[in-house]
Amino acid sequence: MTVISGASGTGKGTVCKKLLDELPQMFYSISATTRAPRPGEVDGKEYFFITTAQFKTWLDEEKFLEHAEVYGNFYGTPSHIIEEKRNSGVDVLLEIDVQGALNVMKKCPDGVYIFLMPPSLDELCNRIKNRGTESPEVLQRRINAATSEIAMFKKYQYVVVNDTVDAAVDKIKAIITAERCKVEKNLAEFEHFATN
Amino acid sequence: MTVISGASGTGKGTVCKKLLDELPQMFYSISATTRAPRPGEVDGKEYFFITTAQFKTWLDEEKFLEHAEVYGNFYGTPSHIIEEKRNSGVDVLLEIDVQGALNVMKKCPDGVYIFLMPPSLDELCNRIKNRGTESPEVLQRRINAATSEIAMFKKYQYVVVNDTVDAAVDKIKAIITAERCKVEKNLAEFEHFATN
Repeated sequence: MTVISGASGTGKGTVCKKLLDELPQMFYSISATTRAPRPGEVDGKEYFFITTAQFKTWLDEEKFLEHAEVYGNFYGTPSHIIEEKRNSGVDVLLEIDVQGALNVMKKCPDGVYIFLMPPSLDELCNRIKNRGTESPEVLQRRINAATSEIAMFKKYQYVVVNDTVDAAVDKIKAIITAERCKVEKNLAEFEHFATN
Repeated sequence: MTVISGASGTGKGTVCKKLLDELPQMFYSISATTRAPRPGEVDGKEYFFITTAQFKTWLDEEKFLEHAEVYGNFYGTPSHIIEEKRNSGVDVLLEIDVQGALNVMKKCPDGVYIFLMPPSLDELCNRIKNRGTESPEVLQRRINAATSEIAMFKKYQYVVVNDTVDAAVDKIKAIITAERCKVEKNLAEFEHFATN
């Protein structure tokens, strides 16, 4: 399981999309949400759109790796779908905010946690500003939040600078390849070489 | 510092040569030896050919990461040259046998240790057989030695199967890229992002 995380405005979505184009065998884990679909959003593509009752049932059944409430809507990462895929040997990709990733780390210490870093703080501020027409106060609050999120990069295993999407995707692909070569992930395969 | 190691007959030399063709900025650490150059071997290319007296001086000055005596000749990995390169920010590649690598691990725990694995034991036996016209007893001894060496793969961080040289080189390049993205190697670079 590979987790792509980072402060808001770092470009996680764009990087994940490109990564999935290049590694189509990966399963992209979609969040479940109780908010209404926006125009163009498709159930099972951007999100699983479920009712609040369904969300609460899944919560009771401990079917979320992590969940959060944002402006009255619930968001959660369904663990049972991820488990199904992992058990059948499929690599899973998770795109998740910093707070969510810190929670997932506790539950899945064997995941690969990659922090996507903006090329500079100025660039991050620009990206946040270009996203919407919010008031200066809201913008400043979002920038402060992003700066606090960046401080969390030390909790991750890898840090990849998103200077260009292609370069960031190449690095993430290298990390996925390297992780597959880790000795502890290949013990079963080569154990018999040593004893023959 | 990247260390490529593995049982004899696994193809370490071929893989390192291809890797250096593709990553010419890497510095390939050459061993020092007291044995005479074979026809075609060049001082400073295959080995540093030094006298036994010189070897002993370097040994006294603790200038070897590891050393060994094989059939009366000394072989050693000069640490002062590696240190110079590493201090000036150059990536160093070391090709080293299993016993040597286990010694280097103790002195340089921050190195990246990659075990090159033969695609199968049969293939390894074939490669050892094809190397020379040794007696069946010597061959069997070499095969037994290689099998014991393979048992050491668990001490390494990564294992790469040398099924084809190109695939093995691609994986090693991915490991080098991934290692550069490790958070602990990027703390200094991004520390200021978090505190601004």
